[in-house]
Amino acid sequence: MGEDYKAGCPPNNAAPAGDGGPEATEAEEDFVDPWTVQTSSAKGVDYDKLIVRFGSSKIDKELINRIERATGQRPHRFLRRGIFFSHRDMNQVLDAYENKKPFYLYTGRGPSSEAMHVGHLIPFIFTKWLQDVFNVPLVIQMTDDEKYLWKDLTLDQAHGYAVENAKDIIACGFDINKTFIFSDLDYMGMSPGFYRNVVKIQKHVTFNQVKGIFGFTDSDCIGKISFPAIQAAPSFSNSFPQIFGDKTDVQCLIPCAIDQDPYFRMTRDVAPRIGYPKPALLHSTFFPALQGAQTKMSASDPNSSIFLTDTAKQIKTKVNKHAFSGGRDTIEEHRQFGGNCDVDVSFMYLTFFLEDDDKLEQIRKDYTSGAMLTGELKKELVEVLQPLIAEHQARRKEVTEEIVKEFMTPRKLSYDFQ
Amino acid sequence: MGEDYKAGCPPNNAAPAGDGGPEATEAEEDFVDPWTVQTSSAKGVDYDKLIVRFGSSKIDKELINRIERATGQRPHRFLRRGIFFSHRDMNQVLDAYENKKPFYLYTGRGPSSEAMHVGHLIPFIFTKWLQDVFNVPLVIQMTDDEKYLWKDLTLDQAHGYAVENAKDIIACGFDINKTFIFSDLDYMGMSPGFYRNVVKIQKHVTFNQVKGIFGFTDSDCIGKISFPAIQAAPSFSNSFPQIFGDKTDVQCLIPCAIDQDPYFRMTRDVAPRIGYPKPALLHSTFFPALQGAQTKMSASDPNSSIFLTDTAKQIKTKVNKHAFSGGRDTIEEHRQFGGNCDVDVSFMYLTFFLEDDDKLEQIRKDYTSGAMLTGELKKELVEVLQPLIAEHQARRKEVTEEIVKEFMTPRKLSYDFQ
Repeated sequence: MGEDYKAGCPPNNAAPAGDGGPEATEAEEDFVDPWTVQTSSAKGVDYDKLIVRFGSSKIDKELINRIERATGQRPHRFLRRGIFFSHRDMNQVLDAYENKKPFYLYTGRGPSSEAMHVGHLIPFIFTKWLQDVFNVPLVIQMTDDEKYLWKDLTLDQAHGYAVENAKDIIACGFDINKTFIFSDLDYMGMSPGFYRNVVKIQKHVTFNQVKGIFGFTDSDCIGKISFPAIQAAPSFSNSFPQIFGDKTDVQCLIPCAIDQDPYFRMTRDVAPRIGYPKPALLHSTFFPALQGAQTKMSASDPNSSIFLTDTAKQIKTKVNKHAFSGGRDTIEEHRQFGGNCDVDVSFMYLTFFLEDDDKLEQIRKDYTSGAMLTGELKKELVEVLQPLIAEHQARRKEVTEEIVKEFMTPRKLSYDFQ
Repeated sequence: MGEDYKAGCPPNNAAPAGDGGPEATEAEEDFVDPWTVQTSSAKGVDYDKLIVRFGSSKIDKELINRIERATGQRPHRFLRRGIFFSHRDMNQVLDAYENKKPFYLYTGRGPSSEAMHVGHLIPFIFTKWLQDVFNVPLVIQMTDDEKYLWKDLTLDQAHGYAVENAKDIIACGFDINKTFIFSDLDYMGMSPGFYRNVVKIQKHVTFNQVKGIFGFTDSDCIGKISFPAIQAAPSFSNSFPQIFGDKTDVQCLIPCAIDQDPYFRMTRDVAPRIGYPKPALLHSTFFPALQGAQTKMSASDPNSSIFLTDTAKQIKTKVNKHAFSGGRDTIEEHRQFGGNCDVDVSFMYLTFFLEDDDKLEQIRKDYTSGAMLTGELKKELVEVLQPLIAEHQARRKEVTEEIVKEFMTPRKLSYDFQ
């Protein structure tokens, strides 16, 4: 699973999909794979074009309404605002759900450092919501083996980061009775069912295929080359015999950032050839760096994002000093011409974290008209982020080693399937 | 681990090493890798040239004498007759042994079918002898994952063959208190220590390297490409924490047929880069097919070898009908000119299985002079093979499911190291 992005922002609904096609603007094409997300636009990646290029489907109003009808819950703000904007086979998951057939959630994280930032929480916040409204089991893969293979880390470091990151994930509020978090380095050595699926996938994917999908070269280590099978395996329910027994047909739904889609395109290609159902997907946009949607967030640059360990004061300083502004050069100009929400990082962050739709719309209007100044906009964001981070830190403090151990122990999960 | 060879025979000591070098006879060069052994000579592979090509060392009289001094035991006939003919770092193992430092044995088998033939026993007969004379622990890898990846088998078939083959291996007489037999498909999911070493090795070997060593191509599946790390991992003692705890420095000695050497050249290349000692090796020649050293033994052709399930009558018929003869066309010619032991498969088999050196030499002389006829030579072989196979079958019958289970359970082994 990836971790740091050259950041994007929620999709701009103004740009219709398919205008011109991918070839038309080759020179300015965004680049998205699990290790690199690149765009030259301050508005971020063009997500409508990405949908066309990846061959996924847009999460449209109709699908959001269907989710609302099926769950009886108001759609999460990430759905309402197009932050989860693309999917594969979500209608199939809903068909199954409406027919009382089981499904499970699978998401993950590549633990490349102890430090997680607010952007890393996006898939987990949404996954927790999905777990709550659908009442389904969830598996969370910590790809410490991947981080060991890709980064200059020891096995123990990568594994240590997996455990530390698990605490932040647990602090998102997952149901301990319905959630299994696993480190690959641990779980591979605890579950013959998991390794069997890894080998099955590895038999059905050639080097040519991973070369095409992931851009591997002959100089890459054989660990990288075979790793995609390890990220694919949790998509199949018999990788978790302690949860699903020998059932091979429990439908899997994967919420993740869209840069992870190449892994699951490969998985979906393999699935029917090894007799398993294809996993369904829900894709999110990228979380922008403080410095702007076209710059790179980095765990080694503490000013590129808001970290989950930041104090209230640090949050205030970072937003005020570093959040890229869509405002004008002078107050006079700003009052006259207004600010640009499309490139303003503080506004983008509010779309992720401010729950109140009406208030968000009011801010958008006021900032665009010039009625609201940049300092005022930033103050709104600081007032959303400070309690959010403080509450996260309070919840994380309550995550004891025993709780981590229980989440990370292969065990039965409680769920309602027949 | 490989299984069926285009067979060779014990090295002919008459051919001095290095005459002409590998380039001189490019057109007639033998081909040896873990999947293919090819020679156009009825005498089999030119092992002296193979030593030069692989860069290993010849097991000479001096080394055999040293093994005899160290163990206080008469060298096994496979050493006396050059059947184990090549090594890497065996002197280092003896240094350690003489200084009371521990080492362990590692060998294995690729379980591609239920049927094993006498040739498959060669490494195990020799490994049992090594275990007895050095009194050391032994791990035996059943590469059922490899066979799944390479052959048209299901996971359950490959795993089933691993268990069936383990019975024949156990019937060789290994000490249950000093021997751990494992199926990769089982053990990978039972031991985080094993997977950690696999990933470590996979990080330090590139596709370019396995392409060079094993001839993999872009069309090969990623399972094959990463498999060499799985055969390499048991060379490192911390792959078996239940036996060696967290010790990473217990020296490993691998007896195997020389076609497996590419795996361990790779392993020895990686070892110092991940902080582990290089495994030492003892290489055997190939066991010839009944039809001659330049033909292929095959589990699907029951007449190409003597199987461990053959009856006394089948053995007699096979040897008489199919064993390639170095005799002359007529009795008169044979009496006058004598037979050729260098290409006679019955004689080759006797070098593997007849314990009595004097008797073997007498047979060689008599057959070469023409005093012994082909029928008589074959009778000698039948009389050696029939009790050998019958005794094996009797011992195998005593191998209960419980005994197999105990051999295949990760556990402490008893050994004398400090």
